[in-house]
Amino acid sequence: MNKLIGNAVVGQSGGPTSAINATLVGVIQGVMKTDEGKECIKTLYGMKHGIEGLLSEDLISLKEIFEDEKNLTTLKHTPAAALGSCRKKLPDLESGIDTYEKILEIFKKYDIRYFFYIGGNDSMDTVAKLSRFMASRNYEMRILGIPKTIDNDLVATDHTPGYGTAAKFIATTIQEVIRDCAVYRIPAVTIVEIMGRNAGWLAAAADVGKYVGAASPDATYFPERDFDMDSFYADVEAALAKHPNVVIAVSEGIKFADGRYVGEGQQSGAVDVFGHKYLSGAAKVLENAVKEKFGCKVRSIELSLPQRCAAHLGSKTDLDESVELGQAAVVAAAEGANGEMMLYRRVSSNPYKCEFAHSDVSSIANEVKALSDEFINDTANGITKECAEYILPLIEGEAYPEYKNGIPSFFIF
Amino acid sequence: MNKLIGNAVVGQSGGPTSAINATLVGVIQGVMKTDEGKECIKTLYGMKHGIEGLLSEDLISLKEIFEDEKNLTTLKHTPAAALGSCRKKLPDLESGIDTYEKILEIFKKYDIRYFFYIGGNDSMDTVAKLSRFMASRNYEMRILGIPKTIDNDLVATDHTPGYGTAAKFIATTIQEVIRDCAVYRIPAVTIVEIMGRNAGWLAAAADVGKYVGAASPDATYFPERDFDMDSFYADVEAALAKHPNVVIAVSEGIKFADGRYVGEGQQSGAVDVFGHKYLSGAAKVLENAVKEKFGCKVRSIELSLPQRCAAHLGSKTDLDESVELGQAAVVAAAEGANGEMMLYRRVSSNPYKCEFAHSDVSSIANEVKALSDEFINDTANGITKECAEYILPLIEGEAYPEYKNGIPSFFIF
Repeated sequence: MNKLIGNAVVGQSGGPTSAINATLVGVIQGVMKTDEGKECIKTLYGMKHGIEGLLSEDLISLKEIFEDEKNLTTLKHTPAAALGSCRKKLPDLESGIDTYEKILEIFKKYDIRYFFYIGGNDSMDTVAKLSRFMASRNYEMRILGIPKTIDNDLVATDHTPGYGTAAKFIATTIQEVIRDCAVYRIPAVTIVEIMGRNAGWLAAAADVGKYVGAASPDATYFPERDFDMDSFYADVEAALAKHPNVVIAVSEGIKFADGRYVGEGQQSGAVDVFGHKYLSGAAKVLENAVKEKFGCKVRSIELSLPQRCAAHLGSKTDLDESVELGQAAVVAAAEGANGEMMLYRRVSSNPYKCEFAHSDVSSIANEVKALSDEFINDTANGITKECAEYILPLIEGEAYPEYKNGIPSFFIF
Repeated sequence: MNKLIGNAVVGQSGGPTSAINATLVGVIQGVMKTDEGKECIKTLYGMKHGIEGLLSEDLISLKEIFEDEKNLTTLKHTPAAALGSCRKKLPDLESGIDTYEKILEIFKKYDIRYFFYIGGNDSMDTVAKLSRFMASRNYEMRILGIPKTIDNDLVATDHTPGYGTAAKFIATTIQEVIRDCAVYRIPAVTIVEIMGRNAGWLAAAADVGKYVGAASPDATYFPERDFDMDSFYADVEAALAKHPNVVIAVSEGIKFADGRYVGEGQQSGAVDVFGHKYLSGAAKVLENAVKEKFGCKVRSIELSLPQRCAAHLGSKTDLDESVELGQAAVVAAAEGANGEMMLYRRVSSNPYKCEFAHSDVSSIANEVKALSDEFINDTANGITKECAEYILPLIEGEAYPEYKNGIPSFFIF
């Protein structure tokens, strides 16, 4: 493979995570510190708000900013895409050829030969399309996707950067909520709603405690299994018979056998003061159902946004790996990888060992990886030991930001 | 003052906090390690579920458990009342004399001469009544209340144990949410609901960033000021004109001028599939109002339970002080304090210095301390510099629990 020398551009896209900036740190370090990066890449641009910033030439030169090592450390622990993100999906090659021509023009103008895109499914689609177009125009480039999503639902990779930190926040918060719920003696049911519209990976993290001598919810439900009200009531009843303080974890994406989201149930008829239909979460629907059925105290909680931005409690494993994956992307690109996505390949869980690799992005984009069958128990209300063994290494170790005046210091461009 | 020698009992009551166990640690250390505690107190009992456990003689001897220092450290970082809590309020002395006679009998049976009650307003009421009764029966005792509440709404004390940690979690989470919201370029309003039914102390913590060069919400609203929809719309409009990503913080207890809670607005007419009236939070109501008025993307978040149990991010100042206040309570009791509540007296904010004191509990119980007038800005949508100077020392320093298998280790009796 010939040595390709030129400039590089890096961007972030899709929903924010607590590790997406750690991967950006890795790309910056890959360019500034690895032999391959130093040899091949002269200037490293950051595109603001992903591909939108590229199209509007909203680019910032990154090397100068990060000569100060301290900025890299702060950036590593900063949640959400520091360069800004977008939801833009590139058009089809056929119908949207103008967009691709414009990008090519910008690449030529800035002598950009390396394109790193940190994102989820849609971003991998962008990577696939861009690399196909550039190849068709014989513009030599190395276009690489680097995954990120708290949902952990990308195929081909063992897990996704950002999942470990979200999973650690959920596993930790569940421990705290269970302690909080345990203080009174009166029967009460607390239903905790966890992110994950299409896959139960995040909800699964709530349940790891039971395999390591810690607390765990009385039942945990996943979108991968039909949600059945009778089984749910039976689980709640059995739990209430054991102890007064019942805690249930549910994925936001749980569905009935007929395909309706459980969260949809609330919509029928409910209208607020403004005449809007009320869109509820699954936990709120189940809160009302339990209240109706058992008459006991019930409360629902959505863990909400902090699941994807609680950088104050990072998984050390996740953040360190995310940095290393970014570095590895630069090396892989310098060595010739193009149109591929970086990925983790697990060598072993105990001791935990993961390798970096890359694979053709077109087989990855637009696929969703569900929670494996062998990771869900037979009664569809909890995880298996195998699942805990999969998750536990990913939440190992604590990574904390620096604080100033009692609040965390984050990096802002 | 004569030296009173006997046994002691300690209990926790009211809503959980992340620091209520730190105060328990302090009482245990006060008994086991201070000269006064060692001289005067032989056995230290913990009552399970507060006064209910005392009445049912559900008592556990604490010294043996905590000879192992490690247990004390774990307990200090455990959220929610480890001994269990209750919401029981003792009856009036006149009508409920039997209850008091029973308690006296139990005190005599266990030779209990010291009673430490860690709790909020209702718990201070229990302390006041108990000490009055015991004095009336000439049963010599030292009955002390030790405050705790995340709400910071107790009078007489500069602040309450537990507030600092809740405030730190809120101040930190707001920084993270603002970063998360900043990633896109399309106009969007995010409304964050913060605990505090009667006082705006917790919401105030969301706004400290602006006085220390960090981020802060575009507007923050408190229950101490009438909530006016027109002013709110004007604030949102002005913020949207400045930047696309608007973040608003509201106290759950904000009210309209006519006394109705903003959260009540949602109830009228909204009925769910089970025919229940839907009770919403203030943020949800404002989400719908902004959607109606501005037509932009709007989202509401309740920070919910983690505000009072997120022990994974303790304020070091809060937890250390809470321990010391518990120790000071034992010393004060041994020296003769009775029918009083322990309290903080601030000597200075910069450098921060607080002293421990105690004061007659009957003047404290059943009073609510609102956010001071000089702490709210003239436009009633943010805090003043004086308020930030008050709050900042209380969230200073990070106190982290120990982790095992990636999740925090908590103490369970």
